[in-house]
Amino acid sequence: MAYILKGYKIVQDVKPGGTFLLDCQWDEADLDKHLPNSVKSYIANNGVKFYIINATAIAAKEVGNAKVKNTVLQSAFFALAKILPTEDAINYMKYMATKSYSKFGEDVVAQNHKAIERGAGALVEVKIPDAWKNAGKDKAEKPVKSDRPELAEFVNKIVTPVGKMDGDSLPVSAFAPYVDGTLPQGAAAFEKRGVAVYVPQWNPEKCIQCNNCSFVCPHATIRPFAMTAAEAKAAPKVTKFSPKPVAKTEYKFTVAVSPLDCMGCTLCVKACPVNQGADKKAAAAGVKANPADYAIVMATQESQLDQQAAFNYAVANVSEKPELIAPTVKGSQFKQPLLEFSGSCAGCAETSYARLITQLFGERMYISNATGCSSIWGGSAPATPYTVNRESGKGPAWANSLFEDNAEHGLGLALGQKTIREKLKGYVEELAQNAKKDEVKAACADYLATFEDGATNTEATKKLVAALEGCDCELGKKILLEKDYLSKKSVWIFGGDGWAYDIGFGGLDHVLASGEDVNVMVFDTEVYSNTGGQASKASNIGQVAQFAAAGKAIGKKNLAEIAMSYGYVYVAQVAMGADMNQLLKALTEAEAYHGPSLIIGYAPCEMHGIKKGGMQNCQQEMKRAVEAGYWNMFRYNPTLEHNKLSVDSKDPTGDYQAFISNEARYARLAQSFPERARDLFAKAEANAKARYERLKKFGDFYS
Amino acid sequence: MAYILKGYKIVQDVKPGGTFLLDCQWDEADLDKHLPNSVKSYIANNGVKFYIINATAIAAKEVGNAKVKNTVLQSAFFALAKILPTEDAINYMKYMATKSYSKFGEDVVAQNHKAIERGAGALVEVKIPDAWKNAGKDKAEKPVKSDRPELAEFVNKIVTPVGKMDGDSLPVSAFAPYVDGTLPQGAAAFEKRGVAVYVPQWNPEKCIQCNNCSFVCPHATIRPFAMTAAEAKAAPKVTKFSPKPVAKTEYKFTVAVSPLDCMGCTLCVKACPVNQGADKKAAAAGVKANPADYAIVMATQESQLDQQAAFNYAVANVSEKPELIAPTVKGSQFKQPLLEFSGSCAGCAETSYARLITQLFGERMYISNATGCSSIWGGSAPATPYTVNRESGKGPAWANSLFEDNAEHGLGLALGQKTIREKLKGYVEELAQNAKKDEVKAACADYLATFEDGATNTEATKKLVAALEGCDCELGKKILLEKDYLSKKSVWIFGGDGWAYDIGFGGLDHVLASGEDVNVMVFDTEVYSNTGGQASKASNIGQVAQFAAAGKAIGKKNLAEIAMSYGYVYVAQVAMGADMNQLLKALTEAEAYHGPSLIIGYAPCEMHGIKKGGMQNCQQEMKRAVEAGYWNMFRYNPTLEHNKLSVDSKDPTGDYQAFISNEARYARLAQSFPERARDLFAKAEANAKARYERLKKFGDFYS
Repeated sequence: MAYILKGYKIVQDVKPGGTFLLDCQWDEADLDKHLPNSVKSYIANNGVKFYIINATAIAAKEVGNAKVKNTVLQSAFFALAKILPTEDAINYMKYMATKSYSKFGEDVVAQNHKAIERGAGALVEVKIPDAWKNAGKDKAEKPVKSDRPELAEFVNKIVTPVGKMDGDSLPVSAFAPYVDGTLPQGAAAFEKRGVAVYVPQWNPEKCIQCNNCSFVCPHATIRPFAMTAAEAKAAPKVTKFSPKPVAKTEYKFTVAVSPLDCMGCTLCVKACPVNQGADKKAAAAGVKANPADYAIVMATQESQLDQQAAFNYAVANVSEKPELIAPTVKGSQFKQPLLEFSGSCAGCAETSYARLITQLFGERMYISNATGCSSIWGGSAPATPYTVNRESGKGPAWANSLFEDNAEHGLGLALGQKTIREKLKGYVEELAQNAKKDEVKAACADYLATFEDGATNTEATKKLVAALEGCDCELGKKILLEKDYLSKKSVWIFGGDGWAYDIGFGGLDHVLASGEDVNVMVFDTEVYSNTGGQASKASNIGQVAQFAAAGKAIGKKNLAEIAMSYGYVYVAQVAMGADMNQLLKALTEAEAYHGPSLIIGYAPCEMHGIKKGGMQNCQQEMKRAVEAGYWNMFRYNPTLEHNKLSVDSKDPTGDYQAFISNEARYARLAQSFPERARDLFAKAEANAKARYERLKKFGDFYS
Repeated sequence: MAYILKGYKIVQDVKPGGTFLLDCQWDEADLDKHLPNSVKSYIANNGVKFYIINATAIAAKEVGNAKVKNTVLQSAFFALAKILPTEDAINYMKYMATKSYSKFGEDVVAQNHKAIERGAGALVEVKIPDAWKNAGKDKAEKPVKSDRPELAEFVNKIVTPVGKMDGDSLPVSAFAPYVDGTLPQGAAAFEKRGVAVYVPQWNPEKCIQCNNCSFVCPHATIRPFAMTAAEAKAAPKVTKFSPKPVAKTEYKFTVAVSPLDCMGCTLCVKACPVNQGADKKAAAAGVKANPADYAIVMATQESQLDQQAAFNYAVANVSEKPELIAPTVKGSQFKQPLLEFSGSCAGCAETSYARLITQLFGERMYISNATGCSSIWGGSAPATPYTVNRESGKGPAWANSLFEDNAEHGLGLALGQKTIREKLKGYVEELAQNAKKDEVKAACADYLATFEDGATNTEATKKLVAALEGCDCELGKKILLEKDYLSKKSVWIFGGDGWAYDIGFGGLDHVLASGEDVNVMVFDTEVYSNTGGQASKASNIGQVAQFAAAGKAIGKKNLAEIAMSYGYVYVAQVAMGADMNQLLKALTEAEAYHGPSLIIGYAPCEMHGIKKGGMQNCQQEMKRAVEAGYWNMFRYNPTLEHNKLSVDSKDPTGDYQAFISNEARYARLAQSFPERARDLFAKAEANAKARYERLKKFGDFYS
């Protein structure tokens, strides 16, 4: 891939006379156009033997499993390296594939065998054109620019060299500006890693402007924009517009895609109701849907690279339209996401939740993040995927704390903020009494009236600051010294199930018990994902993990019920793919509640090994989990006098055994311990039924 | 106090010509009889000015508050030391008393003032008899003896010198035998601290042999014994016997008291139903009860010292009578307590619970003890109050672990034991198949049939060991190598509320979730007692602690409900003084349950500041707590198909506000923040009502 060849000095590591194999989608004829000059010149001047292969196409299209790409390349390697006679190498590889993958089923073994056979035979030797000898050097890359000079400096001095694996060349002094551990937000936007083979292509003619595509996107790489006529006019020519304006307005509507940031997860394509309708219609007619009927399809990154300009323009120039922003699926997506282009896996559910939360509350968020996947995608040094709103310059203040003390760390953020605000409130109260100007008095009154309301206090604070900046009083100056702390913040504590259910639970319990106004978001993957696969107390009966090979024998801990025992904790369980609106209700209720809130979000994960479609079906898998009664959705709201507990899941209609056997984390047990699997799976199903019945009983209990 | 003069070199620290004040119950005329020779000789030969005072009598009888004894002595000190003119000193002391104690009420201030006035005037100067000059030396104390030589050695080499505050004289090498951190059990029995002024005197004529006195005793210093005719005949003459034999037997019944181990807490006197009946009858007649109608009264330690011999004889020589032992109030007390003479406060509820548990399961107990009061009274170096049964030589294996990891430590004990036993079980199964002798086969079968049953497996193991010792087979020898691990043990995890609700909760939750067979006993004093008085999550609304002076604003955490959420944890709340039988049921059910058990025991504490009678009324305070709805008793038993939750408390009939205002931990708030107190106390009462209603609702929930 051209992008990788540009970024890293890969070819230059090949010894003269050595062999270089490039996995790419190009024909031999296209190479001259795509390869950087430095690459062409090095190959030609060093007698490098050069081969190409399209492993992606072989794996995905010929073998039918994109994941076996590595096996294709392994086979190609042995064919080229000739460490063994090719035939022997193929036999050995097949033997190992049978041994390793039998537990995943015969079809996986067959796919690997096919990949091995095809890999060795699909090599194309490239004839090196003489002209390459004089191809010359590449153009020097320009340093990045930004409205925020501290960000541009950070990217140019740290992110770019480290990103190109050249960080060892940096002197210690380069890190001096960051010695207190804080880094400028938004650096991830400059990475443009370009790792997706296929990226979405939007079809404006078919789009119904629901914004579902953007709502589910883990990486914020597909975004709707509403443009004024002037904004639309100034947009790059490649920008596509919907034939219809945004409902009830004259704004022109576009969906912008960033091909170089997209991970190719396909969630947007799957979440599109137009596509779903087309599939349904076609299925009813017994035919395959016509891609022209889709509102969004996957296309090669190459074919969509021109869209980068449209995306970049919209992000940098199109203003937010406040009248369109609302805590709805559609309205939330007209707000700039403040988590973008993170390093999470393609299709990751965790980042979809987190991105949405930043759209709802990001400009006034503090986040304390427990160690785990979310601390990795949230801050893989040196990239910083949390960013600031272009117009306000505000974004989440994010910090990572330890596995065992993150809740406490978040509580500290809340208490610190509370203490400073209480002091400032005293000043404002004094000022409200004594101020001479009516304007200042009014601003003080407005500030005090909205003091505890995050949704309105931000505006009131802006007005107060403006009023104080215009007046020349001592108390006003004192308040302005700490103006960043004036407005009501939204304190969030993020972490995975290993943190919330296990290692950090003692602290989480303490924080929930404290009664303080914090919001806890648990990304529940039901397993220690990032630490390599240990069962957590969130794991279910029969679930297999790397370090729990015989399947967990004891049921999932009921964290929500424990939190509900306090009576003053807002508690919700959500599943984005099952019910987007329920998720939005839970998030807004939790944030608005003046006390501790706990939201447990079901998060399918690469490690679950979803069989049909893999993580492409992440959101659909959540829906199936709820339909099968595997996961329940509900909201417990302490502010309600009656019916505090709303059971939002309907009675399960799906097949529990079918659901779990579609995930390798369960199916594996049936392979390795069939009898135990039968027992545990039956137990797990009975357990899930009992849990749902218990939940409904609690609905009555709290009625 | 003669005992203290014997134990420590106190007089010898007075400089020649100095002044020595002795607080004692003796008249001047009695001194010659009571003082050790070394004391008399030192005083006479060094020109020491010698005064006596009976501060105990002044405080308890004249002032009416035994606790102001220190104030009496302080006043006496200033009168003797003449640092200030006595009148000034008295005025300063009164001023400070008013300042310090106003918050506890005017009566406390008045008591202190009276103590100050009386202290200065109650000194008696002793005329030193000439004969004291030649009083000579004391007889050398004999080294202690024991059937267990390692214990005698430990006591003589370590406990005695350290106990006499002479530990600095020990060389490091003296500790060499204990380098692995283990100490012989039972050393506390040799301390004989003699700190109580008044101790119980048993009246055999009135006693109805209910054993309540022994059941509540925190220090195991009052014990019933059933003696055969021979045992009774060999008993010291001072031994008193009930006129009636033990019911349905011919055993003679005695209640033995250890005056030198007793703490004088008076719980036994208060728990006696005969006494209670006499009080009731007298109250109905409007008169004071006649002490002669009591089955047990408090008498001076001096007057009861002869009973020490009776106690020592019974403990050392009277056998246990298995047919009398049962998990009932009466039957449990015929079993030797394996926690005795600990350093806990007089009246401590914690040790009453722990002592009882050792009587039920002590010979097969492992205890992991969290840091806190229970780790202090459980192992105040060098004394070891946990001991072994005289007949079996077995007792609790006790270890202290950290505040933050005690549950995990206890789980480790359980898992280690389980692993070894599973291995041994495999050997026994093999042996059961292949053994040649029928006797061995039968013993193996018996062992395997009782494998998981703690109550019967001990006996089966004894038989198995005997059978194996008689046979010469390899497998048998292998089993005998680990014979101590063969029988089913009872693993207990002890700790206070600071541990269970707060600092150790993360681990406790993990252990309960594990499903393993451990028993957790929480001594719930609702405050960090030993660490100096911080509110814990077990503290209640309105409760004041040293470091929570404004009263806790948030309710007590519902630890039991959290544990019940697992469904497979046995959970009980108990209060010994409110219902002894419910406590016994909970303990035996919890121990018998093959999974995690959690028992939360209400434990009034010195730090609660019970106003009427102080800790003398510890057990009565538990009863009042339940009657007022302050504490609820219940048992959740996962093994039951229906009605898993038994609510054992009756609907509250007591006055909640009256109950809490009888405890300084609440009453103090009304003194310092009357308005806040009114609010919080009302909230606390509403909260208690809601908690009880919720509990009953859970009764239905689990029906």
